Amino acid sequence: MIVIMEPQADQSQIERVVDRLKEFGFDTHISAGVERTIIGAIGQKNELQVQQIEAMQGVERILPILQPFKLASREFRPERSQVKVGDVVFGGTHIPVIAGPCAVESEEQMLAAAQAVKDAGAHILRGGAYKPRTSPYAFQGLAERGLEILAWAGKQVGLPVVTEVLNPRDVERVAEYSDMLQIGARNMQNFTLLREVGMSRRPVLLKRGLSATISEWLQAADYIISGGNHNVVLCERGIRTFETETRNTFDLSAVAAVHELSHLPIVADPSHGTGKWRYVTPMARAAVAAGADGLLIEVHPNPEQALSDGPQSLRPEVFAQLMQEVRRVAEAVGRSI
Amino acid sequence: MIVIMEPQADQSQIERVVDRLKEFGFDTHISAGVERTIIGAIGQKNELQVQQIEAMQGVERILPILQPFKLASREFRPERSQVKVGDVVFGGTHIPVIAGPCAVESEEQMLAAAQAVKDAGAHILRGGAYKPRTSPYAFQGLAERGLEILAWAGKQVGLPVVTEVLNPRDVERVAEYSDMLQIGARNMQNFTLLREVGMSRRPVLLKRGLSATISEWLQAADYIISGGNHNVVLCERGIRTFETETRNTFDLSAVAAVHELSHLPIVADPSHGTGKWRYVTPMARAAVAAGADGLLIEVHPNPEQALSDGPQSLRPEVFAQLMQEVRRVAEAVGRSI
Amino acid sequence: MIVIMEPQADQSQIERVVDRLKEFGFDTHISAGVERTIIGAIGQKNELQVQQIEAMQGVERILPILQPFKLASREFRPERSQVKVGDVVFGGTHIPVIAGPCAVESEEQMLAAAQAVKDAGAHILRGGAYKPRTSPYAFQGLAERGLEILAWAGKQVGLPVVTEVLNPRDVERVAEYSDMLQIGARNMQNFTLLREVGMSRRPVLLKRGLSATISEWLQAADYIISGGNHNVVLCERGIRTFETETRNTFDLSAVAAVHELSHLPIVADPSHGTGKWRYVTPMARAAVAAGADGLLIEVHPNPEQALSDGPQSLRPEVFAQLMQEVRRVAEAVGRSI
Amino acid sequence: MIVIMEPQADQSQIERVVDRLKEFGFDTHISAGVERTIIGAIGQKNELQVQQIEAMQGVERILPILQPFKLASREFRPERSQVKVGDVVFGGTHIPVIAGPCAVESEEQMLAAAQAVKDAGAHILRGGAYKPRTSPYAFQGLAERGLEILAWAGKQVGLPVVTEVLNPRDVERVAEYSDMLQIGARNMQNFTLLREVGMSRRPVLLKRGLSATISEWLQAADYIISGGNHNVVLCERGIRTFETETRNTFDLSAVAAVHELSHLPIVADPSHGTGKWRYVTPMARAAVAAGADGLLIEVHPNPEQALSDGPQSLRPEVFAQLMQEVRRVAEAVGRSI
Repeated sequence: MIVIMEPQADQSQIERVVDRLKEFGFDTHISAGVERTIIGAIGQKNELQVQQIEAMQGVERILPILQPFKLASREFRPERSQVKVGDVVFGGTHIPVIAGPCAVESEEQMLAAAQAVKDAGAHILRGGAYKPRTSPYAFQGLAERGLEILAWAGKQVGLPVVTEVLNPRDVERVAEYSDMLQIGARNMQNFTLLREVGMSRRPVLLKRGLSATISEWLQAADYIISGGNHNVVLCERGIRTFETETRNTFDLSAVAAVHELSHLPIVADPSHGTGKWRYVTPMARAAVAAGADGLLIEVHPNPEQALSDGPQSLRPEVFAQLMQEVRRVAEAVGRSI
Repeated sequence: MIVIMEPQADQSQIERVVDRLKEFGFDTHISAGVERTIIGAIGQKNELQVQQIEAMQGVERILPILQPFKLASREFRPERSQVKVGDVVFGGTHIPVIAGPCAVESEEQMLAAAQAVKDAGAHILRGGAYKPRTSPYAFQGLAERGLEILAWAGKQVGLPVVTEVLNPRDVERVAEYSDMLQIGARNMQNFTLLREVGMSRRPVLLKRGLSATISEWLQAADYIISGGNHNVVLCERGIRTFETETRNTFDLSAVAAVHELSHLPIVADPSHGTGKWRYVTPMARAAVAAGADGLLIEVHPNPEQALSDGPQSLRPEVFAQLMQEVRRVAEAVGRSI
Repeated sequence: MIVIMEPQADQSQIERVVDRLKEFGFDTHISAGVERTIIGAIGQKNELQVQQIEAMQGVERILPILQPFKLASREFRPERSQVKVGDVVFGGTHIPVIAGPCAVESEEQMLAAAQAVKDAGAHILRGGAYKPRTSPYAFQGLAERGLEILAWAGKQVGLPVVTEVLNPRDVERVAEYSDMLQIGARNMQNFTLLREVGMSRRPVLLKRGLSATISEWLQAADYIISGGNHNVVLCERGIRTFETETRNTFDLSAVAAVHELSHLPIVADPSHGTGKWRYVTPMARAAVAAGADGLLIEVHPNPEQALSDGPQSLRPEVFAQLMQEVRRVAEAVGRSI
Repeated sequence: MIVIMEPQADQSQIERVVDRLKEFGFDTHISAGVERTIIGAIGQKNELQVQQIEAMQGVERILPILQPFKLASREFRPERSQVKVGDVVFGGTHIPVIAGPCAVESEEQMLAAAQAVKDAGAHILRGGAYKPRTSPYAFQGLAERGLEILAWAGKQVGLPVVTEVLNPRDVERVAEYSDMLQIGARNMQNFTLLREVGMSRRPVLLKRGLSATISEWLQAADYIISGGNHNVVLCERGIRTFETETRNTFDLSAVAAVHELSHLPIVADPSHGTGKWRYVTPMARAAVAAGADGLLIEVHPNPEQALSDGPQSLRPEVFAQLMQEVRRVAEAVGRSI
């Protein structure tokens, strides 16, 4: 790291900082410029040491040099990782599509949704049994009954299933019923939950937090990987900005950035990313063209009756059309769906 | 709510929407303008009905009329609420100050901190035993041993204590050791945790999420209150924006807005709000002048050795000076500290 | 518009609001709910009337119903507009590519750039003669000499040219030398300049402001169109958010949203949108897949020597590769480049 | 600056960067770490050199060390500057209050406003003759006639006046009629205009842009100062974030930050900062407590008839009450109003 001293820092303050750095095991190098002194510190640092140095008198600020994430970084693992969910592989040439309703509502609804997304060519079925809702007065999901229905519907049509887990206590149970565990955006920094899924053997779909930087997102992945679970798939689903025409701002550049910084596969979710069903198909095409390693699309047999997220859900026939369009784009970039 | 139809919506689509609204129990009123039809719907709505109407064909968008929070609103309770923590009251003329280190590190550190903040006139002692850290490689807190030390230090100097709870499983244990439970910014929408503290009898300090609107924050309070726990104190601690000179953007207008919209007391935390100890004293003064019902200030006997948040922690003598300054401002606005 | 009264508003306040609305020529309709009174006002409104009503005693807030932009809206003109720059057409099946360096630096540099982008298949040459720079110590452009060089280089290779105009005084001169006028992001709400280019006959490339909503952007287009210049092409170039891995957050959903809300063509600029040359090609592919009606790409014969924006400029050979990739994506979505 | 090379950068790339840095006149120091090479470069840099180095092959990123603003910085001038407008001084112990309507509408309106703010104890009269309006259909101001009315009203009550200038062509004329020139938020990076007011001798009130960082704001001040006009007063007026309860997010920490980074006086504008008249008084108190060197408050004799910004304008009697409250807070922090 680089320590920048204040212009008015005196010699004794500089020496104290250098001593402290050496105590931490750093090699130091001092550049005494005209305007201020800069101290280079070479060695392994941790967050705590950075903060302790930053709190010293005479220190203006610290410039970190290395990224704070490690296990998720390309430096740790230069080649791209592949994550398997049943027979489905994320991170290869083929681009899997996860589709289904926001929430599991009933057997009829899930079976209709499962059949529709299977017929259109989706590879994994989704559906929420535990729903994180901003308002306590909104539908909160069918809980364990929802898990049963989801697993049953997946089996009926022959698709693996993914569903969100909210409570650290539920990780094992959810893992029994599903092939992939989803960590939702609001829980991206629920570290208790991250540790818990890190101890599971199920692959994890880690959604980006509403106001999480890419670096924080990869640090969240580090939590899971450092627990022993290497099967992490990232999911861009829009960030919060001032724009209100879309529900979130779908940050597709994150796909390119993650490919540069990390070896983990990244999926894009234009349904949450835009929040309006009319924008889902063009942004799904864009995600594939940007290099996304998968898509997550909300599909409901009858959006007007949906118990959650109706406005951003596609009708089955619109989803079938989407699949045709993204297939053509996938071929244009040398991949397949 | 107001339903705005698309310009090209036809008569049958309008009728379907009206029928659906009536089915939901709304009184409807149609205004057929030159450019488009608008349907007013009078009655109690819930989030689900809004989304189901919004997903109907021909509907452009919905304008909600009532705020989505209820129990936390001034309409539910017009007069200001008071929340008691031991003998300390939030929401009255007196402005309590919560102070202490970010993390409990050792008996010596906590006792020194407790004595220093008590001497300077603070009313509640804070200290984290479970720390939510962005990086898995950072100090994660002393856990139950930390709770013991915090409770012991509080007793030594005669101050009630507040500490953060991260895991729904820990709520009971943390409540045993502390007088107030803190929900951190990253957990403001951890609904599992909100429900759990809603079932506790301990007062709750609910920090605003990094990217939470004031409305979402008050809905989070609704989660706790609807569980039966009315003792909620809000805490503004900065939101995430593009500005990087401060760690967060300290949104002091939220104090004025919460006083308009809600009956709950609101505390301000300029330590996290700005992230730099030099800005803490002026912003603490500003918070009191804006009408805050309390302050939360990070104080560490030796910030350079702090295991967490050193750069934003005040030394005891700086904190003592802050207390003198905020006392004068409190008097100028007809209150006391 | 919809006027929402405060819960405690009394009858006389309601009547005053209704009287004022009638004075403004609105038809009104009152819904006296249990919790509050809502007044629907049907008719043409303007911004001023909204504000005057909002400032009345007893009024809580106003919900506008119609979008504030008119001439740029799809309601004003349901079919897509086409804008011609020389023989190049924006808004049709063909997707024109604008390319060239950020700044005009010299005859040699511009000719090399012009030749390179022409060879790779670009349709319009760009280059800045007047540069808006955050710091007064940065290179500010060659001014009129830059205009001459740009026009000369365009003629040499047979490409029309586009360049930015900063000063209302310069509009005529810049229009003499160029085929299209660019309004930069920092000037999107420079209304003096918008009015001036509205009086020009040259097509305008209107970049989105760093923190402009899509609605404000379309209102800025209204300024130009209402001056008599209908030839407006919008350009998405990234918005400012908390994310720092990219220079801006490239809001590609704006392409889908603009196609829904407006008849104007929209171009995407992944060079400014991401700020890093490595991310330009994948995001150019994504822009075409999302439906963009054009691309703007920064290309410099030697980015390491560039006087401006080197880090986001492509070398000619990388640009040639980009052109091949976006052509394949264009075909996949039924268009051509 | 610090140049961080990519992990895979080879020796020849490192040497090319070092050669280039030496060519630019830097002293360099190479640290070859295990993971990557870091090059320290000591000397004066400019923005261009940074970008040219950043664009070189093998370079991952650049960490700048010095702030990019110079003339506005505390390093350039350690003691606080004072700016005089007539007999009114910004930057001393006394805190001047600028007040008046958003727009000049008529002689009657301006005289009533001028008398009211004078009676309540304001020090400078404000009023807009040229109005930057988001929509072309909104009231655009009375132009030169507005300047005459403003100057006349100021003279009638004995107050200096400040008004906004939008067009570089108008700077001289506006300077004739007014004692201080305002640069509005939307023009903070209108560099043509900044240069023009830099050549004027009138003091300048420089509002912060809606999405401007504090660093960019101080660079904008550098534009004006480098033109020869040292009389710059900054004005915080809220930034754009995701929060919609307030019109903008009033970033009061900017007052503390500017006092740390710059010698220029800083004024706070809670009227635009919050956008709702109910929040203006508490946030004016907060601004004074935070250390603001002045206040800017919108006051209108009859907000319901205001041609602009009615919802955030105070009635004269509310403003008089505000003045009493901020006076008490000023005394509490050792200043006067």
